Amino acid sequence: MHPDERAIRDLVERWLAGSAAGDLEAVLSLMADDVIFMAPGQEPFGKQEFAAAFEGIKGIVQGTSEIKELQVLGDWAYLRNYIKLTAMPPGGKPVRRSGYTLTILRRQSDGRWLLARDANLLTTDE
Amino acid sequence: MHPDERAIRDLVERWLAGSAAGDLEAVLSLMADDVIFMAPGQEPFGKQEFAAAFEGIKGIVQGTSEIKELQVLGDWAYLRNYIKLTAMPPGGKPVRRSGYTLTILRRQSDGRWLLARDANLLTTDE
Repeated sequence: MHPDERAIRDLVERWLAGSAAGDLEAVLSLMADDVIFMAPGQEPFGKQEFAAAFEGIKGIVQGTSEIKELQVLGDWAYLRNYIKLTAMPPGGKPVRRSGYTLTILRRQSDGRWLLARDANLLTTDE
Repeated sequence: MHPDERAIRDLVERWLAGSAAGDLEAVLSLMADDVIFMAPGQEPFGKQEFAAAFEGIKGIVQGTSEIKELQVLGDWAYLRNYIKLTAMPPGGKPVRRSGYTLTILRRQSDGRWLLARDANLLTTDE
């Protein structure tokens, strides 16, 4: 496997592990400062709004992902992923969400890959 | 404006004009043969499924777009767009949809830009 592909797959794994552990700093370290997240029915949002939302679901979300496509384009890459999330609110019923994402990543001058743009198409399972 | 940016903005305009005119061939000519469209709550789909869906709404959809970001990355580019669509079904009430898209485009060896991946986050307006 190409080192860039390996690095990007590691990023996805660390993202899911950081989310499951409620480790906000770990997840924030994987995104660019100018990251833009997009989801249906809401305005695009950035790192600060991500952090605030993360605090609200901290440690209650477990996820798995299956990378469908990964293309490295020099210092940029795009990724299509299929993600399943389960949120376990204390005392509540589990909420399951699943669906696809289209993500754009950028390689920094120090070689690290960071998430730069993310379109999240997940919907709540019936 | 850089010629690539101009070409991509032209593509967006031609896409909307082709959609409004119900000109399937014009719209199909703007996408790669291996294009993948993504939308919430459904499996990703390709050119053939796009064509079938287009026939179902042919000539009844008008749209406008406001390009929020356009980055050219060599032979690739990504685009964030805000789109408003109005479908006017014959004898029915207009249905309005709006929202953002994240689109990846690819430059062909002949210099033409084509749509390659598209995440569509539009929702029906209340």
